[in-house]
Amino acid sequence: MSLSIKDDEIDIVIGALRPDLTSFMNEWRTIFSRFHLIIVKDPDLKEELKIPEGFNLDVYKKPDIDRVVGTSTSTIFSGYSCRYFGYLVSRKKYIISVDDDCYPAKDNKGILVDAVAQHITNLTTPATPFFFNTLYDPFTEGADFVRGYPFSLRSGVQCALSCGLWLNLADYDAPTQALKPEERNSRYVDAVLTVPARTLMPISGINIAFNREVIGPALLPSLRLGGEGKFRWETMEDIWSGMCVKVVCDHLGLGVKTGMPYVWRNDRGDAIASLRKEWEGVKLMEEVVPFFQSVRLSREATTTEDCVAEVANVVKEQLGTKDPMFARAAKAMLDWVKLWKSVGSST
Amino acid sequence: MSLSIKDDEIDIVIGALRPDLTSFMNEWRTIFSRFHLIIVKDPDLKEELKIPEGFNLDVYKKPDIDRVVGTSTSTIFSGYSCRYFGYLVSRKKYIISVDDDCYPAKDNKGILVDAVAQHITNLTTPATPFFFNTLYDPFTEGADFVRGYPFSLRSGVQCALSCGLWLNLADYDAPTQALKPEERNSRYVDAVLTVPARTLMPISGINIAFNREVIGPALLPSLRLGGEGKFRWETMEDIWSGMCVKVVCDHLGLGVKTGMPYVWRNDRGDAIASLRKEWEGVKLMEEVVPFFQSVRLSREATTTEDCVAEVANVVKEQLGTKDPMFARAAKAMLDWVKLWKSVGSST
Repeated sequence: MSLSIKDDEIDIVIGALRPDLTSFMNEWRTIFSRFHLIIVKDPDLKEELKIPEGFNLDVYKKPDIDRVVGTSTSTIFSGYSCRYFGYLVSRKKYIISVDDDCYPAKDNKGILVDAVAQHITNLTTPATPFFFNTLYDPFTEGADFVRGYPFSLRSGVQCALSCGLWLNLADYDAPTQALKPEERNSRYVDAVLTVPARTLMPISGINIAFNREVIGPALLPSLRLGGEGKFRWETMEDIWSGMCVKVVCDHLGLGVKTGMPYVWRNDRGDAIASLRKEWEGVKLMEEVVPFFQSVRLSREATTTEDCVAEVANVVKEQLGTKDPMFARAAKAMLDWVKLWKSVGSST
Repeated sequence: MSLSIKDDEIDIVIGALRPDLTSFMNEWRTIFSRFHLIIVKDPDLKEELKIPEGFNLDVYKKPDIDRVVGTSTSTIFSGYSCRYFGYLVSRKKYIISVDDDCYPAKDNKGILVDAVAQHITNLTTPATPFFFNTLYDPFTEGADFVRGYPFSLRSGVQCALSCGLWLNLADYDAPTQALKPEERNSRYVDAVLTVPARTLMPISGINIAFNREVIGPALLPSLRLGGEGKFRWETMEDIWSGMCVKVVCDHLGLGVKTGMPYVWRNDRGDAIASLRKEWEGVKLMEEVVPFFQSVRLSREATTTEDCVAEVANVVKEQLGTKDPMFARAAKAMLDWVKLWKSVGSST
């Protein structure tokens, strides 16, 4: 891990969707115990949390959320979205967030992956969004820019977001998961790469890290599906937020990396049962992707807050009339920017 | 390898820059011997070629080149550019081309990589240039599209070009190679990915494959540096041609993949000696990259030949006045399209 980053510049945010975090915390102990943890309990979860001893952590539950944002706003933090409350109350430079059904992975050589160290390396080395380097991240040890890479672009830009991947149960949607119930991801790809500027991608919230000071307000809970449940494949909040983050990063000249670190994702839930809910995620993306591909922000939008507000206004204008879900998402985005300021999350 | 592709739909094109191909051919024997090979001898090379027995091949030398294209044109095929003569005379659907200082690589498990099979897999499965899939090529066995990937984009587009990578000596430019003489690439990244639309990259000609029927005329010898020598790091012909191919693929809705297969690249040449030649490649890319990023082709350009001619005309207009090298490149591109037609390479 980069020597210039102190442990107290990092918050690890965990959204607790299940009451018993014992095995989760114990598996991550060697990696997490140096850092401050923010655990946010899903406000819909009734049972008491079980958390093992020996960690430096703060736990936030429904009454804490209500106190900070008010009871009318606190509903935005239900389910997987509870982690965003952690992003809001953190005052650290970097946030790392991992789903509570993920365990540390092992690399190709069987060595335990330090996901925190890899995320921080990704965030503290430059990103190269303006030209693709065929040998992946040129700032990895033993790598460089290949012949033909312009020297003027080799200093790169600041990396704002690091998206990690998943071994075992990959992050598929409900139809794919139902169609291939036995499929497991066993391919450990030893690479990190910058997602090129103006290229959109489905950003998963399962295993991510970001520079909160730079891009924090763009990671937000805003899109909620009608039949959204408590399984990842039933949700789209992170995908929506990810489209927003990528557009903002592109506009502000910031980088997004994807690839390592991997986490080991355990099986949970019944995809076929999820399918019966008539999941809206499939048809949704057909509208959302072309929309975000076409969004261009104004020169006046110079901060992440400005950018999110501009995106929200275009969402309202162009998508809001198509489905009330989009109008609600636009409002939630504008509310989030205000909340970010009022709670004092901005720097 | 895809069962639907017959061996006789493939030509393997080798540019011979060194007279003794014995060890090169013997190392590749198990992989190459099923296929037809086109060996083009660098017209500047005086010594006789040494080629071992047991291959199905045609060898083209200076007199053959002169006969097909005329003595005035044949100079365009000197050095690394000799392979383009092979692209011109091939009548096969797929071409695979590997530099003569590359040997078969081994994967992470120590198993010999069948570069031909991997290239053909890349070319015969769809590419996905319009949205980035975080788990790399979704058509790889055991992989799929991740949650949030629009279903309407999952059928992908035809893949026209497959760019392989290099273990051991990576494809650096002369300054990088001189600065890090000991650096070797030992990272085998088990992935193939589609380079997103509108994202440019430095395409290396060391280890590539393409659909000749679809994109053949866009792989062309046109940019020649003043002090160009017989080492890869002294050349830019493939990088220039690669920018052209990518722009054409983007315009025609075709895909470009990069990643596997790897080849093992042997050490050859003295990078510091190359540096003394005042290599023009460094400053060149500062002009070339923004230029190709800005090129947009017209709706009328519906074939690869049309597209190359349009790119050539814009090169002449916008870059031709800056450096006579660009004006010469533009002319060579237009000549190539004519040559491709007159030699009967089009389908």
